[in-house]
Amino acid sequence: MTGQDPLVIFMPSGRRGHFAPGTTVLDAARELGLGIESICGGRLTCGKCKVQVEEGEFAKHGIVSRAGHLTAAGEAERELLNAAHADDCRLSCTACVTGDVLVYIPEESRAQKQIIRKAAGERVIDIDPAVRQVYVQVDRAQLGEHRGDWRRLQDALAREVGLTGLTIDLHALRRLQPALHQGKWGLTVILWNDAEVIDVRPGYAEGIYGLAVDIGSTTVAAYLCDLRTGEVLATESAMNPQITYGEDLMSRVSYAMMNDDGTDKMHDAIIKALNKLAGQAAHTAGLKVRDIHELVVAGNTTMIHLFLGIDPRELGGAPFALANRDAMDIKARDLGLRLHPAANVHVLPAEAGHVGADNVAVLIAEEPHRQEQVELIVDVGTNAEIVLGNREWLLSASSPTGPAFEGAQISAGMRAAPGAIERVRIDKTTGAATFRVIGDERWSHEWDLAAAHVLDGKPEYLAAGICGSGIIEVVAELFLAGILTADGRFNAAHPTDRLVWEGRRGAYILATAEQATSGQPLYVTQDDVRNIQLAKAALYAGAKILMKRAGVERVDRVILAGAFGSYIDPLYALILGLVPDCDPQQIAAVGNAAGDGARIALLNRGKRAEAQELAHTVRYIETAVADDFQDEFVGAIHIPHASDPYPHLADLLPEPVAVEPAAARRRMRSR
Amino acid sequence: MTGQDPLVIFMPSGRRGHFAPGTTVLDAARELGLGIESICGGRLTCGKCKVQVEEGEFAKHGIVSRAGHLTAAGEAERELLNAAHADDCRLSCTACVTGDVLVYIPEESRAQKQIIRKAAGERVIDIDPAVRQVYVQVDRAQLGEHRGDWRRLQDALAREVGLTGLTIDLHALRRLQPALHQGKWGLTVILWNDAEVIDVRPGYAEGIYGLAVDIGSTTVAAYLCDLRTGEVLATESAMNPQITYGEDLMSRVSYAMMNDDGTDKMHDAIIKALNKLAGQAAHTAGLKVRDIHELVVAGNTTMIHLFLGIDPRELGGAPFALANRDAMDIKARDLGLRLHPAANVHVLPAEAGHVGADNVAVLIAEEPHRQEQVELIVDVGTNAEIVLGNREWLLSASSPTGPAFEGAQISAGMRAAPGAIERVRIDKTTGAATFRVIGDERWSHEWDLAAAHVLDGKPEYLAAGICGSGIIEVVAELFLAGILTADGRFNAAHPTDRLVWEGRRGAYILATAEQATSGQPLYVTQDDVRNIQLAKAALYAGAKILMKRAGVERVDRVILAGAFGSYIDPLYALILGLVPDCDPQQIAAVGNAAGDGARIALLNRGKRAEAQELAHTVRYIETAVADDFQDEFVGAIHIPHASDPYPHLADLLPEPVAVEPAAARRRMRSR
Repeated sequence: MTGQDPLVIFMPSGRRGHFAPGTTVLDAARELGLGIESICGGRLTCGKCKVQVEEGEFAKHGIVSRAGHLTAAGEAERELLNAAHADDCRLSCTACVTGDVLVYIPEESRAQKQIIRKAAGERVIDIDPAVRQVYVQVDRAQLGEHRGDWRRLQDALAREVGLTGLTIDLHALRRLQPALHQGKWGLTVILWNDAEVIDVRPGYAEGIYGLAVDIGSTTVAAYLCDLRTGEVLATESAMNPQITYGEDLMSRVSYAMMNDDGTDKMHDAIIKALNKLAGQAAHTAGLKVRDIHELVVAGNTTMIHLFLGIDPRELGGAPFALANRDAMDIKARDLGLRLHPAANVHVLPAEAGHVGADNVAVLIAEEPHRQEQVELIVDVGTNAEIVLGNREWLLSASSPTGPAFEGAQISAGMRAAPGAIERVRIDKTTGAATFRVIGDERWSHEWDLAAAHVLDGKPEYLAAGICGSGIIEVVAELFLAGILTADGRFNAAHPTDRLVWEGRRGAYILATAEQATSGQPLYVTQDDVRNIQLAKAALYAGAKILMKRAGVERVDRVILAGAFGSYIDPLYALILGLVPDCDPQQIAAVGNAAGDGARIALLNRGKRAEAQELAHTVRYIETAVADDFQDEFVGAIHIPHASDPYPHLADLLPEPVAVEPAAARRRMRSR
Repeated sequence: MTGQDPLVIFMPSGRRGHFAPGTTVLDAARELGLGIESICGGRLTCGKCKVQVEEGEFAKHGIVSRAGHLTAAGEAERELLNAAHADDCRLSCTACVTGDVLVYIPEESRAQKQIIRKAAGERVIDIDPAVRQVYVQVDRAQLGEHRGDWRRLQDALAREVGLTGLTIDLHALRRLQPALHQGKWGLTVILWNDAEVIDVRPGYAEGIYGLAVDIGSTTVAAYLCDLRTGEVLATESAMNPQITYGEDLMSRVSYAMMNDDGTDKMHDAIIKALNKLAGQAAHTAGLKVRDIHELVVAGNTTMIHLFLGIDPRELGGAPFALANRDAMDIKARDLGLRLHPAANVHVLPAEAGHVGADNVAVLIAEEPHRQEQVELIVDVGTNAEIVLGNREWLLSASSPTGPAFEGAQISAGMRAAPGAIERVRIDKTTGAATFRVIGDERWSHEWDLAAAHVLDGKPEYLAAGICGSGIIEVVAELFLAGILTADGRFNAAHPTDRLVWEGRRGAYILATAEQATSGQPLYVTQDDVRNIQLAKAALYAGAKILMKRAGVERVDRVILAGAFGSYIDPLYALILGLVPDCDPQQIAAVGNAAGDGARIALLNRGKRAEAQELAHTVRYIETAVADDFQDEFVGAIHIPHASDPYPHLADLLPEPVAVEPAAARRRMRSR
């Protein structure tokens, strides 16, 4: 492949390469180390290797033609795609590159299925959901008495439950008479907010369920809960498919501004993804999607606008006006969501133009407004939200860190999926690394490549890329080993043979060719280190600005939240300088606090009122326009000296592992 | 054609005949005098002659096979139908009969387009609709101020209009920010019930419209109104397409009970018809359907159940329990109605199992509860509703008259459409008839058949059938001429040559072969007379029962309502005995009072509250189970002696016209 050859970019990973015309998309993907499912091996019988070709201008990616360039689909391909109702797709085993093209690999086509590392935290939540069930005995209709069955039900609810002024959803009204007859006038009623009857079932019939969703720029997480017990029955997550239209918030806002149907496309993409997640969650729990009676949604302001189908362009420039800041209740069907036909959606409120429902969810989950101590809560993601305060006062800010912490904008980056490097240790003497990949408990130097268990034609481990926690650890370990300097440059004086140079730009071999799925070494490049530095500097500067505004010199406690936050080792976060100095014992990683908050609001309607109030009491600080932001940002780009504030830090670090390069023996190809 | 040949039945007219296999559906229809549009004359180029083949068991009609029997569609036919997006249709010019079949001729395929005889009555109505417009100036968003544009709009509405606690429809929220920018923060807001923002428009933009609909068993009428002026901009009506599934209410209830998808099919049919009427009305008024911001619906209880998609089976037997008796507000989109995307539907309340929103609409239109006099209001239709009372008391009842008054169940019956006989005079001496058809001002004896203006290959007049008012007049005139006896039998002793006999059963030639579109004489058969007698006896008995219950010997005033009521000559109604004795000067025909009531509720929301109250104060009398109903019914089957109570009646009747049979000269066929 040469630079003159067509450019092929794969989303959502962003990996790219130039390939000779005639290369199949499947081969191109494999050459870049991307697994696409293919059972029949290009015999055009399985139809598993579906990809989507994105049309439009993607100047940012280096593609300016509107149409994707692939050979035309033949008869057999069209038939397979029609049978799969996938008419906007191509089969990657037969579609060949003819020009520059942006290809999206849908979740179901990816060879590596996503795993969930951690179910939602086991917090104590009072169960008082907006959706509840009551059983009532309704008066039987009598000749000469004309109330109508809905009035008879209202009378029963007033008499037996004390509720008046109720409405009924049309879908429930349609089921009322058959349910009354089948249940011999005994009826289980599902009420929403003690205001609306959303379902009726004959006789006594238990079972109400809800879904809490956190829509992140990169990752969407969903928790299916039993609304009677609060139990999480299923936790599912997926890549936000909007990533095709832009990796960060501003790219998506731009996409909406530049394309007339941009908002609709991104709205449809997230609704489709949520329907799929709901289906998966219901399936996992042995339920049907129509058993889901409510959905609570958290997300940043742009995600919420797009979820509602509202053009987010006003968020792209001052004064960053939200279409709506307050909590909303909408019928799920009005958004195209396929849950119970009468299900409602509760959208949590936002604080300001760039601090959204996800941060409000973090607040109701972490409750800094109930603490004496000054807490700093950092919700790490493609856009980071920062909260500082205690029971007396709360400040919030937003920092555009970019997606580096989620494994994007990193040359070998990938999501937390099997094969992703998540833990790294570097030998200070040899500079060689040992690491662990998701899906294998062993460190890489313990691997016996010759005896690898073969799964789907491949050894079951091997490194496919680096996920967020792996990136943070490798950069911190490189620094601790002296391979990186405090200003983030590779140290040519280090005796390691793992550093390679292209002119003055170094790169570090994290995994050798033998250890990598692609058969090519996985590098940590100078750009990767820079991206991490910029991201952590943005986080740090945002936190510092809030501390200055509050007149706080030091925080008592740091909470690292984020869909991947549970995997960050707080020590490495401190070494890298993601967060201001704090006793390492007082740094806690709490996982997806926004998701937890959505789940709490799903299970407790009092928390919704609290969220609405908090959204108005938190004082939002516009850090981007602060005079001192740039100073703080630049000052935070360096990696701070690890052992300076915490002499005991070295003791807390794990014992370095001696890595012999010979341990990575040549593996036997099993096919 | 013989009795062994396949049976072909055409809906909605119900005309039927046996045809040799291989006969095209178009030819069969023409042979029965039914006009199907066809421009290309069977050359398979125009695609105008579309018909629908109904599948299912129609045992009542004499068809028991589930599938309709026609030859398979060829390539050319399929292409034409695909192009017209009419894939459930066949082209009648090419589809040939192979077995028994039930064929529905859709409105657009009928050669005789329906006309509206009378726009809605010009009543005085205070204009105070549920939908109103206000113009507000909204605060401009400021950096550092985070209310959100919806909150800013709420603040403006509170400040300038004094409204608080409002909600906003998602569709309006989606339009809010662009409208604010385009209108430079000046906004026209469309409010529903002073509770919900359903639309926003940039700057100052006038124009709000609503649709009032009366869903009858046989006819659906729609009035498009300007909600600022109350002006009726368009009046449209159509056959209720549910008639395919049963002509009267009980047949439709049965259809719903016998077929799992019966309710859905009938629901879909009426929604489709309403969408079409809304489209036609908007087109007539130079508007778009999305300009219609509210719909008010009246209809009998079965029609309202089916409109809402609720199985009406409970109305099929005691205790006749309604799913809901009270008024309802629903989003039009939840019913599949294509109006403004945030439009609401207001469904008027019902009184009891068989007296529905249509009668409540009649009450708010005619206001018997404001009269001193005792009024009898008869709303004539396939199901007749009767109200008796004054400001002190009101009774209501329902009488299943059947569709005879609407031209169905009458051998030559048809809807009020061009070519339908609407007025009849019979010469007492010769027994010959002269008549007028809709679309021609002249009496038939004035026709010059030789000089007939030819339109679409046919003279522009000629009689196609008899509509409701024509049937009432011909039976009354036959009685006045002595051709019918008071017990409804044809009088063989009358010297007329217009009577023909088959054994002891007579039939009267109303139109000669030369005068008829089909080239076959139009008869009034003994069965036709019996059907009218049964229908009028049901009406009369219902009214009598109410009078007995109220202890009233005589009513002060009779109001004849109904979609065709304006065409009944009150004198003939009295002669036939449709209504109890009353001073003929005190009988008024008011047209579609239910439609008027729906329109009034559309224009004045106070009337909706009044409707809800009236629905509960009217006392419903279950006449069907009354011990004395059968007596009254049997006693009312005879035709009362016309001149007995009103010696001056003969003076009021029009001068009989001398009809010479020779006047109907042999006409020249123009093609």
